[in-house]
Amino acid sequence: MRGVEPAGDFAVGASPRFAVVGAGAIGGYYGSKLARGGCDVRFLLRSDLGVVQREGFSIREGKNTAWQVPVQAFASTVEIGPVDVVLIALKTTSNAELLHLLPPLLRDDTVLVTLQNGLGNEEFLAQHFGAGRVIGGVCFVCLNRVAPGAIEHYGHGAVSLGEFGRPRSARIDELVATFTRCGVNTKAVENVADERWRKLVWNIPFNGLSIAAGAVTVEDILREPRLRQLALDLMGEVIAIAAAEGHTIEAGFADYQLARSESMGPYKPSSLLDYAAGRAVEVESIWGEPQRRGAVRGVQGPRLGMLHTLLQSMVDQRLSRTMDL
Amino acid sequence: MRGVEPAGDFAVGASPRFAVVGAGAIGGYYGSKLARGGCDVRFLLRSDLGVVQREGFSIREGKNTAWQVPVQAFASTVEIGPVDVVLIALKTTSNAELLHLLPPLLRDDTVLVTLQNGLGNEEFLAQHFGAGRVIGGVCFVCLNRVAPGAIEHYGHGAVSLGEFGRPRSARIDELVATFTRCGVNTKAVENVADERWRKLVWNIPFNGLSIAAGAVTVEDILREPRLRQLALDLMGEVIAIAAAEGHTIEAGFADYQLARSESMGPYKPSSLLDYAAGRAVEVESIWGEPQRRGAVRGVQGPRLGMLHTLLQSMVDQRLSRTMDL
Repeated sequence: MRGVEPAGDFAVGASPRFAVVGAGAIGGYYGSKLARGGCDVRFLLRSDLGVVQREGFSIREGKNTAWQVPVQAFASTVEIGPVDVVLIALKTTSNAELLHLLPPLLRDDTVLVTLQNGLGNEEFLAQHFGAGRVIGGVCFVCLNRVAPGAIEHYGHGAVSLGEFGRPRSARIDELVATFTRCGVNTKAVENVADERWRKLVWNIPFNGLSIAAGAVTVEDILREPRLRQLALDLMGEVIAIAAAEGHTIEAGFADYQLARSESMGPYKPSSLLDYAAGRAVEVESIWGEPQRRGAVRGVQGPRLGMLHTLLQSMVDQRLSRTMDL
Repeated sequence: MRGVEPAGDFAVGASPRFAVVGAGAIGGYYGSKLARGGCDVRFLLRSDLGVVQREGFSIREGKNTAWQVPVQAFASTVEIGPVDVVLIALKTTSNAELLHLLPPLLRDDTVLVTLQNGLGNEEFLAQHFGAGRVIGGVCFVCLNRVAPGAIEHYGHGAVSLGEFGRPRSARIDELVATFTRCGVNTKAVENVADERWRKLVWNIPFNGLSIAAGAVTVEDILREPRLRQLALDLMGEVIAIAAAEGHTIEAGFADYQLARSESMGPYKPSSLLDYAAGRAVEVESIWGEPQRRGAVRGVQGPRLGMLHTLLQSMVDQRLSRTMDL
C-alpha cells in the first residue's frame, strides 16, 4: 500500500477524502485523475490489487498521451475506513455487494456518488443507505480497461453531477470544483435523471446492438444502413419513454448523437467487451429498467423490449451452457 | 450409381420421373420416401455423393423407426437428363445456381416443384423458366441432416402442393396421389401462397429467435416467458403482413402454433444449425422478403424488421471476420 504521491501538474488543495468502489475503467480513470490532481483517493481492488499496488494505474489518453499514477490500493473497505465521498463504479449486476462493501466507508455525512450505467442505481442506494447521501454522476466517456491497472481513453470524458431527486446543492458545487481542478470536465446539473436518459439514448442502441448484431463496433453500426436506422429507431423509443417520465430531450438529439459517434471509429462498447469475455452484462440497468418504465407509462418500445429480451437470453445461454450443436 | 431398387412396403405403380436438386434434409427425406415407394427418383448430390452412392439414404423417424433406401445419385444434372418433375430443395441462398443446374433437366412439360423456405422462390423460377412450370410445395416438417446421407425426422411431415398463381390442376392431383401412395401426407391446395405465409408464421419467430437469442431451441423459446411473448408478437406481425397481402389467417392460429410446438422439445431449427455450422442462412427468403412486402403495403413490423437486420448483420460478421476482441 502506498501513501499519496501526487503526480502531474495540478495544484494540491484541500479536498475531501475519496473511496473508489469498483475500480474498472470508469472508477480507475476518474479516481486516477483525482489522485493525480492531489486528492486523497483510496481504491478498493480485487484481481488487479497486486499490479496497482506495485505500479499504480496506467492511463493512455488518445494516441500520444500516457501517464501513470501511484495510488492507495486496498483489499477491503474495512481497511479503507470512513471517507467523505464514495465514488461507486461497480458493475450494476453486482449492486447487492454494496450492502456489505459500503458500511465501513460511511460516516453520517458520507456522500455516495454513483457513476454507474443505466437506471435504478440512485434508487437502490437511497433505499439502503438513505436518499440524503445520494448523488448521481453521469459519465460521457469512451474507456476500456485493457489489462490489470491499464485503461485506455478513446474520447470524451465529461461528467454531470446532480443530487438525487433534489435541486443542486453546495456539496455538488464543491465536488464539481474538485473534479474540475483535477482536469475532469465536470458540470453541476439540476436534474441528473435528465442526464441519465440522455446517456441511455446512446447506450441502449450502441451497447445493445454491438452484442446483438454479432459483435460489431460503433463504426459497423454507423456504416451498415439498416443497423444505423435501427439505432435511430431505438433512440426514438428511448426518447419517447424519457418524455413520458418527464425528461424532455430536444428534437435533433438522436441525429446529433449519431453524428457525434462518427469520431469513435471501431470502438467496442464496454457491454460488448463484457459479453465477449464472459463477464456479467448490465442488462437490467441499461435495457430492462428503461423498458419497464416505458411499460408502466403505457409507452410502447417494441425494439427496446425485443433488444432486452434477446440480450437477456444471450447472456443466460452463455452462462448456462456452451454452444453444443 | 445404382439402379432403382424399391424398398419398403409400398406398391410400385406408374409415376413420373423425378429429379431432386438440393438433397439436404428436405430433398433427401421426401426424395427417399418417393424412391422407397417405387418412383424413379434421381438425386443431384455434391459432398454426400460417395456415401449416398454406396449406402443410399438413412432415415430415422422418431425413436424406433429407421430405414435405408438405395437411390440413384448423380454428380451433375447433365448426367440425370430430362425428367418429368424437379423437386427443388436447394437452399434459397443458392438460387442463382438453379440457372445452370436446371436446364439439362427440362423438357417442355417438365414441372418445377419448389419445396424451399420463405418467399420469392416461385417468382424466381417463373421469371427464369416460365410461370407455367412452377408448382409450390410447402413442407411442415421437423428434419435435420445429421451426417452425409443421414436424416433424422422429429415430427410432422405434411406437404401442401399448389399451382403458382393459378387454381388447382390435374397435375397437382396426380402429384398428390403419387406422394400419398409413397406415404407422404400430402394435400392439394388452391392457394399455395396462403400455405407459405402460414409456414412463415412459425419459421420467422422460431428460426430467427433460435439464432438471435443466443443459440436456443424451440423448447427454450417456449419456456422463457419473454421469448415466448416475443415469438407471439412476431407471429402477430407476420399475420398482419399476410393479411395485407390478401392471405387471411384465422384468429387463434398463432396460439395454436405455439401449442403445437410444445411437442418438438429441444428441436434446433435448420437455420440455427446452418448458422452454427458456418453455412449460409436463408435470411432474405425467410425474413427479408416478408419484411419488404409489409413495407410495400405500409404495414409496420418493427420486430420483424429488427430481426431481419440483426440476422443479416450476424451472418455478415460471421463471414467477414472471426470475433477478435
